[in-house]
Amino acid sequence: MSDLDRCGEWLSGKGPESDIVISTRIRLARNIEDQPFLSKSSPEQRSAIERNLALAIQRRFPDSLEYQNLCQLSPVDRLCMVEKHLISKDHANSDGDRGVAFDERGRVSILVNEEDHLRIQVIRSGFSFDESWQEIDRIDDELEQDIGFAFSQEFGYLTACPSNVGTGVRVSVMLHLPGLAMTKQIEKVFVSMQRTQHAVRGLYGEGTHPLGDFYQISNQVTLGRSEPQILKIVRDLVSQVIGYERDVRKNLIKEKPMTLADRVWRALGILKAARVIDSEETMDLLSAVRLGIHTGLLPDIDTALVNELFVLIQPGHLQKLEGRKLDTPERDIVRANLIRERLASVV
Amino acid sequence: MSDLDRCGEWLSGKGPESDIVISTRIRLARNIEDQPFLSKSSPEQRSAIERNLALAIQRRFPDSLEYQNLCQLSPVDRLCMVEKHLISKDHANSDGDRGVAFDERGRVSILVNEEDHLRIQVIRSGFSFDESWQEIDRIDDELEQDIGFAFSQEFGYLTACPSNVGTGVRVSVMLHLPGLAMTKQIEKVFVSMQRTQHAVRGLYGEGTHPLGDFYQISNQVTLGRSEPQILKIVRDLVSQVIGYERDVRKNLIKEKPMTLADRVWRALGILKAARVIDSEETMDLLSAVRLGIHTGLLPDIDTALVNELFVLIQPGHLQKLEGRKLDTPERDIVRANLIRERLASVV
Repeated sequence: MSDLDRCGEWLSGKGPESDIVISTRIRLARNIEDQPFLSKSSPEQRSAIERNLALAIQRRFPDSLEYQNLCQLSPVDRLCMVEKHLISKDHANSDGDRGVAFDERGRVSILVNEEDHLRIQVIRSGFSFDESWQEIDRIDDELEQDIGFAFSQEFGYLTACPSNVGTGVRVSVMLHLPGLAMTKQIEKVFVSMQRTQHAVRGLYGEGTHPLGDFYQISNQVTLGRSEPQILKIVRDLVSQVIGYERDVRKNLIKEKPMTLADRVWRALGILKAARVIDSEETMDLLSAVRLGIHTGLLPDIDTALVNELFVLIQPGHLQKLEGRKLDTPERDIVRANLIRERLASVV
Repeated sequence: MSDLDRCGEWLSGKGPESDIVISTRIRLARNIEDQPFLSKSSPEQRSAIERNLALAIQRRFPDSLEYQNLCQLSPVDRLCMVEKHLISKDHANSDGDRGVAFDERGRVSILVNEEDHLRIQVIRSGFSFDESWQEIDRIDDELEQDIGFAFSQEFGYLTACPSNVGTGVRVSVMLHLPGLAMTKQIEKVFVSMQRTQHAVRGLYGEGTHPLGDFYQISNQVTLGRSEPQILKIVRDLVSQVIGYERDVRKNLIKEKPMTLADRVWRALGILKAARVIDSEETMDLLSAVRLGIHTGLLPDIDTALVNELFVLIQPGHLQKLEGRKLDTPERDIVRANLIRERLASVV
């Protein structure tokens, strides 16, 4: 698991609109034809599906992807993969044979036996719809040469949950919206997403309180529209939100420069000073630092450093770093030490 | 007013027990015999009293004390004198001829026409009862050679307010009690002070919420006890409180080193980073830094630097520094700038 220690390329802070867009992620849900969905399969059937899919993936992508059966990993290693967005929390915590194939840059992951037999995921830094789509489309085509996917002429791709039937595509864009959050205008985003049947979530999973001002916008509808249509709608919505956030930031710089500067510098000051810090406070402070970078207040700090800290300060990564299980108070100390170390050279 | 820009020696952080005791202050209330108390005197009588006392003081202490009629000072200059503890708020804000004589080290001040005709005050750094008493006793004796003080064989010195009759002495010890405050044991101090008829106040005046964890303990009773008796009682009481605070600090270092370190380092981090800060937050943070110095966490910071900041960040001093009237939001910015500048070389 050499690659587990590395952060995904999606945290590099590069790519279009990367002052606001952290990452663009597309995933496709696929199932093998003539095989029961996982909810209806026996442990033996499940294991057989896992073995066959692992082999097919390794055959198709022998050099670019590494395959890992999740049962062979420790809970902490699985948690780290969740924190890196390589696998889902459900995938990490469920039972039975299941696995993931991923590339060393953390851009591609193929989940075997999550909710569906296959979940193909591509994640890239910034607002990168075209590149992400081209890559996932290519992987999907390659796999389809070896694997017959469950498909209906009427509905499209068949999936374990009806909400994914059709294209099986979900596009998720992770946005950093500290300006809208700070000026209490984020509600607008929620309303417009609900109206257009799109979901808004936090950085990790389905929680309601979005830590670090990260908001993930994704389509809910997968049926009745083509992939390009779905992509276009999400892209247009996100473009609007980017526009809002950019306006708010410009306005903050112009109208409340001291409030903004105070918030940004205090955040950096606390991160560099704290000896004990929980993840919620850390993410709020990192969010302010990230805003500082992209409003020109902290030009010397690398976005990648801050983006990576959002992942490295999570419980799995901290325990991996220390090489042992840590309770919450211990994590708060290890987290503070890690942050101070990483920021030591900064400003 | 050359000396207005200088901080008093009582902020030097020197003297006995200066990790906990900021300063020891003694004041004597005196009135001229055969003259009405100020509350009963006409403006003309008041002016005559001021002129006579000013002359008497200047005659007695031509080299060591500078005399200033307060009417000739701007409100900001008077406010600065209040913040330096040279005069009281009431003295600064009242009307009519009144003044103050003070030495360049800010250790002695003689208030003319405050509540009484004369209030003689000596203030020293640390727990300095003997030196303070010797000095004020000497000044009192010197003045008494020129001025006949109102005195009754039955009651002692007569004063405008009955609460000062007798010795006219008030001893006030300013304590920094962040440990007792942090561990919520400060209530004990209040109870024992009330039981023994002593007052506890904050750093500035009579307010109830003691900013910066500064508590001023002073005697209430001035009648029926000799000066040495009054001094001894206050000294013993304060010694007890010093013992409590020292125990709490030792315990914090031993039992909660991370909590303590986190508090201290965050405070310093915020002070060095903030661009906007009000005086209440500043004093709380400076209090934590001061605790850090005296628990060995911040050995490189000079106590005097921190003590002086408690005074320099007050509204009068900030306006004096900028040379103009500042509203509250402006002060919060000037304060933050001043603090960053002063702490720039630190750690």
